Amino acid sequence: MTAFRTTHRVEFHETDMAGIVHFSNFFRYMECAEVEFLRARGLSVTMTWEGVNIGFPRVSAKCDYLQSARFEDVLDIAVTIERIGEKSVTYSFEFTHAGATIARGTVTSVCCRFEPGHRLDAVPIPASYRARLEAVQT
Amino acid sequence: MTAFRTTHRVEFHETDMAGIVHFSNFFRYMECAEVEFLRARGLSVTMTWEGVNIGFPRVSAKCDYLQSARFEDVLDIAVTIERIGEKSVTYSFEFTHAGATIARGTVTSVCCRFEPGHRLDAVPIPASYRARLEAVQT
Amino acid sequence: MTAFRTTHRVEFHETDMAGIVHFSNFFRYMECAEVEFLRARGLSVTMTWEGVNIGFPRVSAKCDYLQSARFEDVLDIAVTIERIGEKSVTYSFEFTHAGATIARGTVTSVCCRFEPGHRLDAVPIPASYRARLEAVQT
Amino acid sequence: MTAFRTTHRVEFHETDMAGIVHFSNFFRYMECAEVEFLRARGLSVTMTWEGVNIGFPRVSAKCDYLQSARFEDVLDIAVTIERIGEKSVTYSFEFTHAGATIARGTVTSVCCRFEPGHRLDAVPIPASYRARLEAVQT
Repeated sequence: MTAFRTTHRVEFHETDMAGIVHFSNFFRYMECAEVEFLRARGLSVTMTWEGVNIGFPRVSAKCDYLQSARFEDVLDIAVTIERIGEKSVTYSFEFTHAGATIARGTVTSVCCRFEPGHRLDAVPIPASYRARLEAVQT
Repeated sequence: MTAFRTTHRVEFHETDMAGIVHFSNFFRYMECAEVEFLRARGLSVTMTWEGVNIGFPRVSAKCDYLQSARFEDVLDIAVTIERIGEKSVTYSFEFTHAGATIARGTVTSVCCRFEPGHRLDAVPIPASYRARLEAVQT
Repeated sequence: MTAFRTTHRVEFHETDMAGIVHFSNFFRYMECAEVEFLRARGLSVTMTWEGVNIGFPRVSAKCDYLQSARFEDVLDIAVTIERIGEKSVTYSFEFTHAGATIARGTVTSVCCRFEPGHRLDAVPIPASYRARLEAVQT
Repeated sequence: MTAFRTTHRVEFHETDMAGIVHFSNFFRYMECAEVEFLRARGLSVTMTWEGVNIGFPRVSAKCDYLQSARFEDVLDIAVTIERIGEKSVTYSFEFTHAGATIARGTVTSVCCRFEPGHRLDAVPIPASYRARLEAVQT
């Protein structure tokens, strides 16, 4: 599968006193890239789908940091789907800058039904939503 | 009115590449202090009050920065109510460290009714909620 | 002066449990817009300018919130310089969405000399930096 | 080894529109707990140690989410050192609330020498710093 590609320019507030991007922000970058990937398919991490409010909270997230990123660096982000399960999707992300790999991450999101005031319940990914996820990337 | 007092120790992720607390974080500190102030009165910024879901989104926020704050500094925060209107509360905050004033801020929160899927509507602060706000601070 | 214009699409992590953008994030949006405005002029909020490390920490920031912004809303942001002083710049920002004003803010940044391990000292804005700020916007 | 224990009360700005703590914040909670753990030993993630500026940027971070956490929940956080290598420390964290496990995470921090304007270089953890890490927890 060809990766979906997007970019992010590092903002000042994303740096810390060590002069580099705070490690926690890579998880936000991954979410933004996941949302953009979904948007390109007419999907989202939270939406009403066939009358049901569904969302995709994360059950697992991981990142390995190879090099630091700095203010105003433009990071290239490659998103690929590693696995689509019955109720979950696992994405992998590679961050590069000027040809060098900065970080590699993985996030697993689980399809949940959201009802106001109720707890989250994992549900199977709706077939039509899954079909869009599985469609060949352009 | 005697000020309500709390403290905050600056976290690493709250600093930026200039080596100081990012200015936006003072607005988060103000919210945390507002919430703590309310909690001490059995109140909150979002709660069910006499059967109605109310919240207190901000309509205005301001901060003046006099000195910079750094990692692991313990900031003293003094909270006072500047004004209680029919539908809003204006708080003022003073941040000090080692006797020096670091920043001064003001936030105005408006009482709103929250209903899932509806827009926010400003409503009068419930009388019993207001009574607790007005109670002498201990 | 014609305003400099940019946009920001609301990210999921920028929302809070009230379902709207957390008010503190507008200060981050203002900084990002300020940085973009400067970048379009070959400037930045932190850089080496004629051999001196200068930065522009904020001494004052303010925002009025008129309507709430939500996940995936694309906000239009207009940046104008309100005043250029000897050592400071005051920017004003207007956030609109679908034609409606969402928020209006003001930030004052002060030109400071940064030396590792020293405190920040306000210094006059270098003449050549100032000239670029004052140049007619395109 | 007995775990080091601390707590964190969930702040409003840490929630997202799903009404739960945004998953990225657990990485900030882990850092805060790591810093507190170190502070209890007279150490820090960034300090001058025997004349050298050292810091502990993360090279790997992971979190598994079992249950969601909500506004004003007080999370109990248990910190244990999983491994001390020549240049790195691996911590593990367990978050519980009301007796239930909320999340489990792991972070690996690498000892680096920081010099202004230079890139980060991993260096062996100073022997006296390591001795404090290895000391029996109280």
